[in-house]
This record gives sequence, structure tokens and C-alpha cells, in this order.
Amino acid sequence: MSDSSKVLPSEEGPLRHDAYARAGVDIAAGNAAVARYREVTSAWRHPDQLGSIGGFSGLFKLPGDDKRLLVGSTDGVGTKILIAALSKRYDTVGADLVNHCVNDILVVNAKPLFFLDYLAVGKLDPEVAGLVVGGVQRACRANDCALLGGETAEMPGLYEPDHFDLAGTIVGVVDAADVPDPATVAPGDCIVGLPSVGLHTNGYSLARSLVPFEEWNAPFPAAGPGVTYLDALLAEHPSYYDAVRAIQKVADVKAMAHITGGGLLENVPRTLPERCKAIFEQSRWSVPPIMEELVRRGALDNEERYRTLNMGVGYTLIVPMADGEKAKNAWPGAKIVGWVEERKAGEPPVIVHPARD
Amino acid sequence: MSDSSKVLPSEEGPLRHDAYARAGVDIAAGNAAVARYREVTSAWRHPDQLGSIGGFSGLFKLPGDDKRLLVGSTDGVGTKILIAALSKRYDTVGADLVNHCVNDILVVNAKPLFFLDYLAVGKLDPEVAGLVVGGVQRACRANDCALLGGETAEMPGLYEPDHFDLAGTIVGVVDAADVPDPATVAPGDCIVGLPSVGLHTNGYSLARSLVPFEEWNAPFPAAGPGVTYLDALLAEHPSYYDAVRAIQKVADVKAMAHITGGGLLENVPRTLPERCKAIFEQSRWSVPPIMEELVRRGALDNEERYRTLNMGVGYTLIVPMADGEKAKNAWPGAKIVGWVEERKAGEPPVIVHPARD
Repeated sequence: MSDSSKVLPSEEGPLRHDAYARAGVDIAAGNAAVARYREVTSAWRHPDQLGSIGGFSGLFKLPGDDKRLLVGSTDGVGTKILIAALSKRYDTVGADLVNHCVNDILVVNAKPLFFLDYLAVGKLDPEVAGLVVGGVQRACRANDCALLGGETAEMPGLYEPDHFDLAGTIVGVVDAADVPDPATVAPGDCIVGLPSVGLHTNGYSLARSLVPFEEWNAPFPAAGPGVTYLDALLAEHPSYYDAVRAIQKVADVKAMAHITGGGLLENVPRTLPERCKAIFEQSRWSVPPIMEELVRRGALDNEERYRTLNMGVGYTLIVPMADGEKAKNAWPGAKIVGWVEERKAGEPPVIVHPARD
Repeated sequence: MSDSSKVLPSEEGPLRHDAYARAGVDIAAGNAAVARYREVTSAWRHPDQLGSIGGFSGLFKLPGDDKRLLVGSTDGVGTKILIAALSKRYDTVGADLVNHCVNDILVVNAKPLFFLDYLAVGKLDPEVAGLVVGGVQRACRANDCALLGGETAEMPGLYEPDHFDLAGTIVGVVDAADVPDPATVAPGDCIVGLPSVGLHTNGYSLARSLVPFEEWNAPFPAAGPGVTYLDALLAEHPSYYDAVRAIQKVADVKAMAHITGGGLLENVPRTLPERCKAIFEQSRWSVPPIMEELVRRGALDNEERYRTLNMGVGYTLIVPMADGEKAKNAWPGAKIVGWVEERKAGEPPVIVHPARD
């Protein structure tokens, strides 16, 4: 993103603008890498490859079919994997990954067809691998998506014996006419948010730096009776497929964003026209307790909260103001979280009004 | 593979049957993991998912099209990545990966449509990432395959700062009628081999244990003037797409195998009917010098050579005996490397007659 997004100043605490960088993740380097990728891929582009919307997924003209597009997306679960590995809870990260990928292609309205996983380990334990792939399979089934294949690589020297990495690729299909067009978004539209259940698959390097391993099995009563920090940290990234389909039945959905790394500040602009900005009011939704806890422990300023964490909104849909209430009522937990205004020169594409503490 | 393959006894040296396991790679654990995957995926299978041939790739009925299949395959480059990382040669592993994937779906005769990469790093260096993805892009272009997207993940704590992992997924398309049927393979058929240029993407844990880092920049004259061990180790995995298309113009290709991890012993049986065995005569082709060197240094027995390394044959095509010469002459370097015989009860599916040293 070349646009800089912005949140209004918070009322509280010291600014800790660099907490995410201190946790070892360099967003500037990420942007520089994307710029390098643009350079190395600019010399040639396959003629059937289409421009993507916001980069959540890639679109490809299905050969011999003038109506349909294939949609592909690859992702990992980030360092959530380290929490799973160290706590030996292996059966959820596969579902995190599949649901993440389903949501990424849902932004262009694609229906999942199939998924392939990549599991890399330092020392292959067949039981552990079976649990990880079991999570992949469970979520594939729930999304009516074939688990078409995968690769398991044992790589001593690259991974610690009890570490692993997991990535995956989803392929879906969509009628070209059904791909949402962010150019139709206009001032006055309203933004419907679907609730997140926690960090989903982003912000885990920060979370690990703020909630040390020794505390993971301690009770975290803010999240409910009997819930540990580990439960809250590993809460499964949900698929928004059914929610989106339910809302589309009653509302004209103009654009959608999956709120992943970069939070509301970097993901929502990916589906806004240049002349529009999004205004969010945090008082309109609730922030999951684990995120409140990270904000408190890290004394994260608002900029960092909304750039690193989803802060309670996992997916956004922009609909005409007239459809807002219907959309909200079509799915439990859906909320009107903001609206679209005209963006003037020099203004950021996203403004978040934080709730007062 | 439940079948055990076999090579005839070699004339030379001590048996070092466990060299690959000693290098940290556990083939038995791999087979056990595959068995666990079968269990966890047995409860549900998407109705449009088809049985795969030999497991090189997955096949999926293209919805609304009764003739064509989508084909998907995910792979990594194994610990070749560590050699690239430690030697700081970043621009070839991307091409290794793409070509590996192209060959994997070529086994079912698929034409590549698009590719997505997954790059995971300990510390993101945009220049390094650009070089890696540049290699991916170069091979995508050479194979007329779109680079549709990818994911770059910075994961401190999982990867050493200067380490990285690279995996990728290819999607292709094939007419169902054009998928080779290994059931047509019969005794008397001949096996055409396409030459490998080195280890391709398998056997690197073993190679690193036998050729230490300190030696990588030393001359390796057996491979040619000015060639170092590093050059030989990093030689790029070729795409066999054009070779296979050229051979298919002149010969009836009944089945194909990409010779990857498991070598001739485990890959060729994946495309043979139960009643057939493959006989290879190593005197019919030449073994790349880097493999001769590994065999010598590791005192590898024939079983291990042919199960861990491709030993000079990167891809096999089974054609009727009458088409063998035509097939061989259709592509430079193609050789008739063996033939198919009837397999009797208790016989292994592959027998390799080693050349005398």
C-alpha cells in the first residue's frame, strides 16, 4: 500500500509505535519486497492473468470459457504455528489456514473448489502430521472444498526438530460478472463487519512477545470461565463463506475485504476507490478480550492496534446505506461498523474513531 | 508405496544402507505419515475429486465442463534451499520449484495454467526475496504459466535470520481423454528416459552430509572446467514439458513418471500396473558426476542410490517397443533406459541392473 492510513489519537498511555517491529516483523521490508516483486514480474505477464482486486487473490481466465474465472490464493498461518508447536496443539492450525484462504478468495466472490497444503517439519512425527492434516481436512469438508493434495517435507537443519511450518493454496471459481467492483463504492455507503474470534492468523509475533510461554496455560478469565491464554490465542480463524452468502441474498454487496495482516488500516483501502475513505467507529463493535489484553500489555497506540490486529472485525462488506440494516440482520454478530465518505486530497483512506476506555 | 523395490547386488564396497536416514531424513516416517493422511481423509472426499495417478498431482472435475479436469500439485525444493541460503545464490531455487511442479502435473499430461509461491523467511531482505521470486517468474515465463500470486511470510523464531523456505503450487488443465492410463502398460513396452542434470530437488540432506560447506567453492573438475561443487549441487531442475510434447508427437506414450524423492525405485511403480515390472540397465545412460561423487563418498549401495537419487534419469515415458527408437530420436539426450516385463508373485516392481564400475 502506498497510501498511509491513520487513526485518530488515543486518549491513553505512552505511544509504542514500534512494538510490532520490536517483535521481529518488519512491515517496511514487506512493502519493499512487494516493490521488488513488481519489478521482477513487470517484464512479462501471462495474457490470461487478470488484475486482482486488492491482491487478496489472483484471477485467471478459464481457457475455453468466456464467462468464468479461476481464482487462486496462497497463504500461511504465520507464527501462530509456533504457538501450536510449543503447546503441542496440532489439530486447529490446519483449519485456520483453510478458512483464511477461503476468505481471501471470497473477497472476489469465488466458490472454493480445492485446496493443497504444504507441511514442512524438522523431524517428521506421523501422529503430529496426521493431526495437522486432519485440521486441514475438517475445514475443507466444512467449506465443501476438496483436499486435492499436499506435500510433507522433512527438512533437518532448516526447522528445529519440534517446529513445523504450514502453508496452503486454494483454487476457486467465479463468474466474471459476479466479481464485486470496488469502483461502485460511493460516499454514503455503509460498512458491515463480521466479528473476529481473536487474532485469526495475524499478530502472533507480537502476541508471543507480550504473552510469554510460561503464561499460556494460565486462566484468562476475561475470555470466559475455564479459558486459558492458549485457548484465546489459538481460537480458530472462522470461514465467512456462509455469512457472506446470507448477506448477499438481502443486500447489494459492492466490495469486501478480509481483515488480515495490516488490519482495517491496510486491508479496507484495498477495496475502496481512490475518491473514498472509510470511517469506523469502534464503539459499534466489541474487541475480543485477547486483543484488549495485548493492547494493554503492549501499550499499543491506535495506529499500531489497527495496523497489526483485526481488533474484532474479521471481514468487511460495503453495501448501500439502504441495505445496511437488512445486511446486519442476515447473520448473527454482523454489525454496521462504519460508513464511506468522500476522501479529500491528503486524507488517509481509513479513519478509526476509537471507543473511549 | 507398500511394494518394496529392489536393485541387484552391487560389486563394490561396504553396504551403507542407512546413509539417508543418518542424514536426518526418515523415509519410514514419511510412509507412516501418508498412512495417517489416508485415515484422516477417508471419512469424506469431495465428489468432484478424482483418483490420482501415482500421487504426483490431484485431479478435479472442472464444474460445468464434462470434458476437462483441473490438475493441482504442491511441492517444495527440500533442503536444496539450505545450500542456496548458505551460499547466497538466490536466483535458481525458484526455477527449480516451478520446473519440478510443471513435471509433476505433466505426468497426467496437464498443461500449466498458473503458479503461486510461498516464501517464508526468518528476516525479510527485499533484495533476496526479489531474487528468489525472480527465479520463479523466469521459469513461469519459460513454461508459459502465469505467476498468479504468492505469500511472503516473515517468521522470526521459526527460521534463522538468513534461512528461508520456498514452496509452490501449480494448477493445470487436461482433457480427461488425454490422461495416460498406466493400465495399458504391458510386458514388452520400452522405457524412455530423459536425462537429469543433477540432484534436481531431492537428496540434498544426504548431499550436505557428504559434501561439507567448506568444499562448496572448490573446483569439481569431473563436472567440467571451472565448475565448482556448488555449481553442480545447484544445477537447475529442468522442465520436461517440451521434451514430452515432442515425444508424444511421434510415440504412443502410455505412462510417465517424474523421478523425484524415492528415485526410480519408488516413482516408476506409481505408473505401472500390478502385473508389470520395470527393468533398467544403467549402462544405457550416464550418471551425472555429482551423483557418482556422492555414491563414492557415501559408499552408497545400489538400493540407496536408486531410492534417494535420480541417478541420471529425471523423467520416464513408457511407449510400445515399436515406438522406442522414434521416441528416443525426438529429443536430444533421450535414451531407451529399460523395458517392461511380466511381474511374478513376490517380485519387486523395479529392478535396476547397475553398470560395472
